[in-house]
Amino acid sequence: MRHPHLDVRRAVRTALSGLPDGSAVLVACSGGADSLSLAAATAWVAARGGSRAGAVCVDHGLQPGSADQARSTAAALCGLGLDPVVTVHADASRGPDGPEGNARAVRYAALTAAAERTGAAAVLLGHTLDDQAETVLLGLARGSGPRSLSGMAARSGVFLRPLLGLRRSVVRAALPAGLEPWDDPHNEEFAYARARVRHRVLPVLEAELGPGVAEALARTAELARADADALDAQATAFFASDARDRSGVDHGESGVPDRRKPGPLHDRQSGGVPLAVTDLAALPRAVRWRVLRRAAIAAGSPPTDLTAAHVAAIDTLVTAWRGQDGIDLPGAIRATRAEGALHLTPRTGTAAGGQGEPPPPHP
Amino acid sequence: MRHPHLDVRRAVRTALSGLPDGSAVLVACSGGADSLSLAAATAWVAARGGSRAGAVCVDHGLQPGSADQARSTAAALCGLGLDPVVTVHADASRGPDGPEGNARAVRYAALTAAAERTGAAAVLLGHTLDDQAETVLLGLARGSGPRSLSGMAARSGVFLRPLLGLRRSVVRAALPAGLEPWDDPHNEEFAYARARVRHRVLPVLEAELGPGVAEALARTAELARADADALDAQATAFFASDARDRSGVDHGESGVPDRRKPGPLHDRQSGGVPLAVTDLAALPRAVRWRVLRRAAIAAGSPPTDLTAAHVAAIDTLVTAWRGQDGIDLPGAIRATRAEGALHLTPRTGTAAGGQGEPPPPHP
Repeated sequence: MRHPHLDVRRAVRTALSGLPDGSAVLVACSGGADSLSLAAATAWVAARGGSRAGAVCVDHGLQPGSADQARSTAAALCGLGLDPVVTVHADASRGPDGPEGNARAVRYAALTAAAERTGAAAVLLGHTLDDQAETVLLGLARGSGPRSLSGMAARSGVFLRPLLGLRRSVVRAALPAGLEPWDDPHNEEFAYARARVRHRVLPVLEAELGPGVAEALARTAELARADADALDAQATAFFASDARDRSGVDHGESGVPDRRKPGPLHDRQSGGVPLAVTDLAALPRAVRWRVLRRAAIAAGSPPTDLTAAHVAAIDTLVTAWRGQDGIDLPGAIRATRAEGALHLTPRTGTAAGGQGEPPPPHP
Repeated sequence: MRHPHLDVRRAVRTALSGLPDGSAVLVACSGGADSLSLAAATAWVAARGGSRAGAVCVDHGLQPGSADQARSTAAALCGLGLDPVVTVHADASRGPDGPEGNARAVRYAALTAAAERTGAAAVLLGHTLDDQAETVLLGLARGSGPRSLSGMAARSGVFLRPLLGLRRSVVRAALPAGLEPWDDPHNEEFAYARARVRHRVLPVLEAELGPGVAEALARTAELARADADALDAQATAFFASDARDRSGVDHGESGVPDRRKPGPLHDRQSGGVPLAVTDLAALPRAVRWRVLRRAAIAAGSPPTDLTAAHVAAIDTLVTAWRGQDGIDLPGAIRATRAEGALHLTPRTGTAAGGQGEPPPPHP
């Protein structure tokens, strides 16, 4: 860490090099040390390169004085030469995802809107290698497989994360003198599990397993993301080429859907579509599990309640068939096998909203 | 955990149900609490089912009295009704893999030989859900991606691990009264990193992230294994269908090779084979990385020195080609692109054994 500001500038330059010449970018800045350091480096790189760089601050209005703080951050960003500096207000007090999820959702929506309004080609986020490692550990604790280990993408839609390869300590050491970071106390309060990972879990892992653990977690994220992308795309291709023929439904070429959301299948068919058992059995297990999971969600089973154990149970109808009964799934959906096909249909004679058979113990 | 012995017996019964009726099995028993509990449950299940069960003890002879201990464990196993009870001696004092790796290698070789000698269809191992969780964390600390997170297989060749779904506490609580387990002190000494994971890391994870962390790690292992199997098989298929055509080499139908070993490619061609860039570019990134890794190993790059960063560097010759120079790899191998093909060949004009450009910081 001899010249941390050079490391941060290099990371920003690499990220911007993927954009068309002359692109405008926005740095998302909470006023915290990481995003302020990113803002300073981006201003420096843009001034000497072919980019124009502005900044956007999101004021969640969650506490008295947050507007003052946003103004003060905006002034600092102007002082760095960033232009425009946009402050947006985002109300996270309502929404379906709890305080942390709501704040995240409105923040990303506000950032996307700011990029559209200002014509920015990208919004730069200040997540570091440490944030990535924490995300992997949180995903590990959920136990929902490689997708939950794949952390944050270096590029996702309009968002770029140039600092994912740099330790937080490097990014903070690169903060120019005179810039006063401000850490939103709500950040830590919201992200209680993340704070415990940051302050109590990662330090123990590094002490017991060696100082490279955070880097190892970040590498795992990258490899797990590539694996999950490939297999998710294969599941998508199965529906696109195969179920489309059977059902007449065109699922489009939208790429890899977000499995946490119902997705196009759910939007376009609520009763599910029978899937030929021979087609399913020909898939690799990892792809078949994804197909079954998506088919159950498409039929109406809530993604948050549908566990890997449920999917494994459906799979026994395909791979361990001995004439057994159907499988009850969350959302009053029932999986049955008949006439060489798997059917996922609303359960009859049961109150809607039933949760299916209890999944195994869950954290 | 109301009736732990029922849980353990059920797990054994499920594992044995996958074997042909009347099969003979061997329980591998160190004399420790987990494998002794497995032995007791297996004896009970076999006596009432259609299986015959024996046991095999491995004496590494690593300390005075180990032969006495092996005799005493064998007597206890005979007392459970297991037949035959075989004791094998395995010298782990030499070998290329260090004391722990050598002991593991000779132990598995001795167990396989015992199964062949006695005509056993399977050797049952006493690894628990906790062992699986520890293995995942150790893999995570290595950071070599989903394969290193996939832990131990419930079935692998002649080996079955019936207890992977049960907590160690359940398995130990099921140990019948009167059986005295004996824990080899060398176990903990050998497996120093594992002991730290067991006693210091997992307890912190459970305290900070919730009591289901071990189960979440075990689920992650199962999902990561399925993903890695699918993608490894696709890389194998690429060589089987594609490189074979080009090179005239038949890589066989041996399934998914162990990527930690050189494997058939390395045995049968030392200079590497050119790979068409268009074929490579058409693969999903996760499959291409596997193909490139295997091709580099086939060309002679040592698997233990070849990092994900090296593979990513080779990949730039495929996906970010702008006429750049070749990439130096460990083992004095050089990756170059020429005439639309990727070449992995011994570096000329360099001392053999060079390690290529330094990989990024590594734990």
